Amino acid sequence: MITIFRYTPGTGCEETHDPATLVELPKTGTYLWVDLQAPTPEEADVLSRLFNFHPLAVEDCWHEPQHSKVDDYGEYIFMVVHGVRYDAQNDDFSTHELNIFLGASFLVTFHTYHSRSIDAVKDNVRRHPNAMGRGMDFVLHQIVDRVIDNYFPKLEIIESKIDDLETELVTDVRPELLTRIFDLRRTVAHLKRVATQEREVLIQMSRGDFPFVSERAQVYFKDIYDHLYRIVEGTDNHRETLNVMVQVYVSMISNQLNHTMRVLTRIAPIMLPLAVITGIYGMNFDFMPELQWTFGYPLVLLLMLVVSIVMISYFRRRKWL
Amino acid sequence: MITIFRYTPGTGCEETHDPATLVELPKTGTYLWVDLQAPTPEEADVLSRLFNFHPLAVEDCWHEPQHSKVDDYGEYIFMVVHGVRYDAQNDDFSTHELNIFLGASFLVTFHTYHSRSIDAVKDNVRRHPNAMGRGMDFVLHQIVDRVIDNYFPKLEIIESKIDDLETELVTDVRPELLTRIFDLRRTVAHLKRVATQEREVLIQMSRGDFPFVSERAQVYFKDIYDHLYRIVEGTDNHRETLNVMVQVYVSMISNQLNHTMRVLTRIAPIMLPLAVITGIYGMNFDFMPELQWTFGYPLVLLLMLVVSIVMISYFRRRKWL
Amino acid sequence: MITIFRYTPGTGCEETHDPATLVELPKTGTYLWVDLQAPTPEEADVLSRLFNFHPLAVEDCWHEPQHSKVDDYGEYIFMVVHGVRYDAQNDDFSTHELNIFLGASFLVTFHTYHSRSIDAVKDNVRRHPNAMGRGMDFVLHQIVDRVIDNYFPKLEIIESKIDDLETELVTDVRPELLTRIFDLRRTVAHLKRVATQEREVLIQMSRGDFPFVSERAQVYFKDIYDHLYRIVEGTDNHRETLNVMVQVYVSMISNQLNHTMRVLTRIAPIMLPLAVITGIYGMNFDFMPELQWTFGYPLVLLLMLVVSIVMISYFRRRKWL
Amino acid sequence: MITIFRYTPGTGCEETHDPATLVELPKTGTYLWVDLQAPTPEEADVLSRLFNFHPLAVEDCWHEPQHSKVDDYGEYIFMVVHGVRYDAQNDDFSTHELNIFLGASFLVTFHTYHSRSIDAVKDNVRRHPNAMGRGMDFVLHQIVDRVIDNYFPKLEIIESKIDDLETELVTDVRPELLTRIFDLRRTVAHLKRVATQEREVLIQMSRGDFPFVSERAQVYFKDIYDHLYRIVEGTDNHRETLNVMVQVYVSMISNQLNHTMRVLTRIAPIMLPLAVITGIYGMNFDFMPELQWTFGYPLVLLLMLVVSIVMISYFRRRKWL
Amino acid sequence: MITIFRYTPGTGCEETHDPATLVELPKTGTYLWVDLQAPTPEEADVLSRLFNFHPLAVEDCWHEPQHSKVDDYGEYIFMVVHGVRYDAQNDDFSTHELNIFLGASFLVTFHTYHSRSIDAVKDNVRRHPNAMGRGMDFVLHQIVDRVIDNYFPKLEIIESKIDDLETELVTDVRPELLTRIFDLRRTVAHLKRVATQEREVLIQMSRGDFPFVSERAQVYFKDIYDHLYRIVEGTDNHRETLNVMVQVYVSMISNQLNHTMRVLTRIAPIMLPLAVITGIYGMNFDFMPELQWTFGYPLVLLLMLVVSIVMISYFRRRKWL
Repeated sequence: MITIFRYTPGTGCEETHDPATLVELPKTGTYLWVDLQAPTPEEADVLSRLFNFHPLAVEDCWHEPQHSKVDDYGEYIFMVVHGVRYDAQNDDFSTHELNIFLGASFLVTFHTYHSRSIDAVKDNVRRHPNAMGRGMDFVLHQIVDRVIDNYFPKLEIIESKIDDLETELVTDVRPELLTRIFDLRRTVAHLKRVATQEREVLIQMSRGDFPFVSERAQVYFKDIYDHLYRIVEGTDNHRETLNVMVQVYVSMISNQLNHTMRVLTRIAPIMLPLAVITGIYGMNFDFMPELQWTFGYPLVLLLMLVVSIVMISYFRRRKWL
Repeated sequence: MITIFRYTPGTGCEETHDPATLVELPKTGTYLWVDLQAPTPEEADVLSRLFNFHPLAVEDCWHEPQHSKVDDYGEYIFMVVHGVRYDAQNDDFSTHELNIFLGASFLVTFHTYHSRSIDAVKDNVRRHPNAMGRGMDFVLHQIVDRVIDNYFPKLEIIESKIDDLETELVTDVRPELLTRIFDLRRTVAHLKRVATQEREVLIQMSRGDFPFVSERAQVYFKDIYDHLYRIVEGTDNHRETLNVMVQVYVSMISNQLNHTMRVLTRIAPIMLPLAVITGIYGMNFDFMPELQWTFGYPLVLLLMLVVSIVMISYFRRRKWL
Repeated sequence: MITIFRYTPGTGCEETHDPATLVELPKTGTYLWVDLQAPTPEEADVLSRLFNFHPLAVEDCWHEPQHSKVDDYGEYIFMVVHGVRYDAQNDDFSTHELNIFLGASFLVTFHTYHSRSIDAVKDNVRRHPNAMGRGMDFVLHQIVDRVIDNYFPKLEIIESKIDDLETELVTDVRPELLTRIFDLRRTVAHLKRVATQEREVLIQMSRGDFPFVSERAQVYFKDIYDHLYRIVEGTDNHRETLNVMVQVYVSMISNQLNHTMRVLTRIAPIMLPLAVITGIYGMNFDFMPELQWTFGYPLVLLLMLVVSIVMISYFRRRKWL
Repeated sequence: MITIFRYTPGTGCEETHDPATLVELPKTGTYLWVDLQAPTPEEADVLSRLFNFHPLAVEDCWHEPQHSKVDDYGEYIFMVVHGVRYDAQNDDFSTHELNIFLGASFLVTFHTYHSRSIDAVKDNVRRHPNAMGRGMDFVLHQIVDRVIDNYFPKLEIIESKIDDLETELVTDVRPELLTRIFDLRRTVAHLKRVATQEREVLIQMSRGDFPFVSERAQVYFKDIYDHLYRIVEGTDNHRETLNVMVQVYVSMISNQLNHTMRVLTRIAPIMLPLAVITGIYGMNFDFMPELQWTFGYPLVLLLMLVVSIVMISYFRRRKWL
Repeated sequence: MITIFRYTPGTGCEETHDPATLVELPKTGTYLWVDLQAPTPEEADVLSRLFNFHPLAVEDCWHEPQHSKVDDYGEYIFMVVHGVRYDAQNDDFSTHELNIFLGASFLVTFHTYHSRSIDAVKDNVRRHPNAMGRGMDFVLHQIVDRVIDNYFPKLEIIESKIDDLETELVTDVRPELLTRIFDLRRTVAHLKRVATQEREVLIQMSRGDFPFVSERAQVYFKDIYDHLYRIVEGTDNHRETLNVMVQVYVSMISNQLNHTMRVLTRIAPIMLPLAVITGIYGMNFDFMPELQWTFGYPLVLLLMLVVSIVMISYFRRRKWL
């Protein structure tokens, strides 16, 4: 699907969906925003036909996955950023690519998936047509700002998952928990990598490296940079928490082993000597004077009691039990 | 609450709390300090109305948490630093934001929480009105200096907590200790992160990056930088100590297991052979010549004694016990 | 084997295999590509005789292994890149060297092994002779592009191996798995090292460091750089996954030990007291009143049952079992 | 205590201990060295009164601990280095601060502790008065050189402690060893941190950053830098050795556990079946034909022997024992 | 021992061993190489007397160990590189220092140990006197090239040691292996450190930092740099392999423990219930009807068999065995 916004000062903003209307680049003072969402080859053809974008950049649009980057092609810049998505049903985080071309008077956005950030900016442009009159860099800022702000609720989902894991870790240590911790750690590592790359992109945008980003707009890109700074920090925190949880898991396991073994070592060292004593008086020797004693039996029971007490208190003193 | 200090050379320092008196920027030679503590929207309005600060900077004031940073807006700089607070009741360390605008002749401080550092500087300005005459950069130095010096007592609290943990670790190894170690480590990591960011801010302040910080004042900001250097080093030390404590904890646990097992292995390998011997002479065969021997019983007891001694000394020699 | 392509505008591309035809460097406007595959000394002689390459560079061609690099010799650049190969029979990944000289109007490729990437470019040149007319930097791009694109299927092989390992890890923990994990990790580390070096080379190629790489071609080398970026990231991901698998392996082992021990501690502490009880009534004292009781035997059996139940429920309550 | 050396070419070097004689800065061609050791406030007063040093630098002198640094104040530089001290009685390493001001024609040293390095240089100046005539940078070099050379014997003490620990580790693994390893590691980490900071200071001194350090003297400071390079490397080595020792400790512990358990598993699986066999023939059934056999008893003994041998050899073959 | 080579164009190369012949620096166009091997003080005197080298550089010659470095003294450069030596008898790797002074027309080499690399270059100079005519930088290259190439066979020795260790690790896990792994790792770490420093030196030599290294020679030093690059990579590989071996060792140990324990848990839980059963029928109650049953005994044996089978199959199903 192709969406075309044409802004002419005075006349305002006009929206069409017909690629055939794209026959020439916007004249000075007019602006053009072309959004390509999972475009047909004919629709995507405008990239080469009208804008004459470099074949490599066009190829990058189709070919996922790219890392987030910004390439300067002189007449325009080509930028890749990543949105984040959470599929609650499959409990799966994924990132999807948004390819952007920014020229002096045009903006082209290309994405294979449906993007709610783009939709929101489209609605905004429809409601406030003059927003496009501030320049395409400001429209670009609106898009990227929404894409990046989407990371925060995802970080919160991760945080609540971590909280759940922490609770379960204390209640019941199962190997399955470890797998979940590692899965989450991999997601966090992935988000961190993406956000770090995007931070690099945004610092370039806010530094005045490109002529199509006006000085006034740079401050706004610096603001997105600050958000990404906090996102990277958030992922760092989560990562560390998850690392700690692995260590806790391991120590819980070895603690459990300790407990397990102590049950055995509390019973066995007491019972074994008693078994030997009963064994002795179960022997069938003809001459065992104790067997004929009237109080032999109670005396042996007493002996067994004494042995038990002596051993328990000895172990206690040596802190073995 | 809004507090306004106006300094005019000769007349001295005048204090008001009425935002309505803020109608124009201070003339050359006069100075203005506006402190906004949890301001009402009307009070905060002066940020845009009078000072015409950038909307993004104003938004950053309201929107916590920001990382510590300093942004150059040409006419003024916008700075975020963090104070540290310790809530002894809940045993909780927290950091709170202090937003600062510094212009050629004005200083604006914005904070949602009550800040004792700011109060102290206000008192100082009231007592020594001419302190404001040295320039707003020196007032700023006083504020930041107090905020940063507040970190040292917090580090000492952490140190005493570490000492407590070390003592407990030697006395009694419980899993609950591990959780406390990890909690403390997270606090230390947080403080380190904040202090490292602030060190970056202070190095910019002391390097002459901004025209509103006079050369004379730069030396003083360099001094705060030195304090932050020591704070970061302190957190590094604490972090390492806590890491070591985790290793000690783990080794204590596995040592305990060793002890536990040794009790069992000291008793069982001796008792089991004795039990077999008594079992043999407890069998009911019709023809067991030893049973008729007059000294069969004492001989077997002797045998059991010999077996015990032989095994113990054998284990000893093989270093098994 | 030597393969010589000579391109003259108008006449097109001519292919020979006779080193004797190489008597002078190509004139302006004509291009020369010499490919040496496991050349005989006579064939390799053209490197010094015709091109007068630096002895050290020529020596590097013969002497494997070099790291990936690009050296500027003024008249030409000398470049080393590595292809990757997977031998399915021996399940072995290996890298092989490709040595390249690029001058203003010539390209020399030198490799001891047969290279499918080179062959593909040769075929391409035969089919589209004018491809050589774009300049030798574009021919070089075609070669390096194919060499690098070859990494992706190898990464997928590694990924499928990792998946296999993960499945086996859950089904059956054997020490042999650990060796396989470590072997794979070493392969991944090797690939990462090679790709990182090549990324360095490609960034130099795309930055305009060398006069023989035209500005138009630089964009294409930047594209290969992007591929290498993703390859390095892919190896990083694999590496982390493998590290996690080591941790999972270790925790599976200690979990197994836990299970193993629990079997023992579920049986022994119950059976040992019962054995002592039977031992008591197996003693041969003359005066043991219980032995004469009519219901002595069932009472003892009952006692043993009670003891078992009491102990099991006690252990359960203490969470020992 | 204050010590004042005044050097005038021709007249030589004059020593006094009276701060009152310090009334003006040395004229060109004459040199002044003031050493303040744990000075009284009146003595320390010369810092501000005569030299007019920056209040922050003066405050740094009194306020320990500073990190090693060098600050440029235009008219003079302020430098902090750390000496290292070993208290053999308490087995304690400590570092103490030496504060230095270097101007064009004066040197001021300030230290609260008694410093043998300073004393040695004083003696040297007394014996060779013309040494001061080479310039204050050379006197400074003498001091810092001695302070840094003092690190080497300390590293040797640490090395011998490590050797001791290694011997003990092999002889007897006790948890107390781990604490000593960690203590030593912390000392080494501290020394490394200090030496790394000082290396930074020395590289600035040897690079010609400051006008008071003549080109001739820079070579000498470069020499101290080389020493610090080796000191940092030495601490790195010690650190790594200590890390390895922790790993060895842990593996020794788990090895011990293995040994411990093997004693049990060598005895128990043999003895338990034997106990069952004796138990069988200890049963009191009326009809147990084996009991009446003439050779029942020896046959059972034989059976027990056979069972033992079979199990041992079975275990051996399965490598369980 | 002192060896002096004097090269005059036309006359060729003259060799003497008399320091007294060194009275003046070589005139333009003539070259001088002085090699000092464990020199007597009189021989070493030429360093100061004739060449007037800086006292610190001369001191560095005598004072081992220095790190590899190159210092620019204006008239000459002073360089320290390290050769590596393997003492097969004591199985000990050591590095020894080679100190080098390079001026416009002279080269001075100073080493306390006998160096085979130097000897080889001497022989070469004797056989090809004109080799000295290319300039002292080329002679220096020959020396350093040989010293560095010596690292490769040492790396191979280490590799074969690692192979041995790997074989032993699989056959028999002993604590002594861990010590050998750590020893080797320390050697590898040492070599890496030295090679990394030398790589720094060589990059300076090949970059044209020093006027005495001609542009033609720089390419040759770049070649040595490439060798060092591969040496550092080789040490990195070895280091990683050794780290993996430590992990394998640890996992082998805990695996062994698992095996050890399983023997116990396979036998004990089966034997203990059987022992209780035999204990029951070994009790001496007057009224135990089973004892009078004709088939009591075989029935109990059957019962024991059934109990064993039930337990084994139960354990099997629960995967406990």
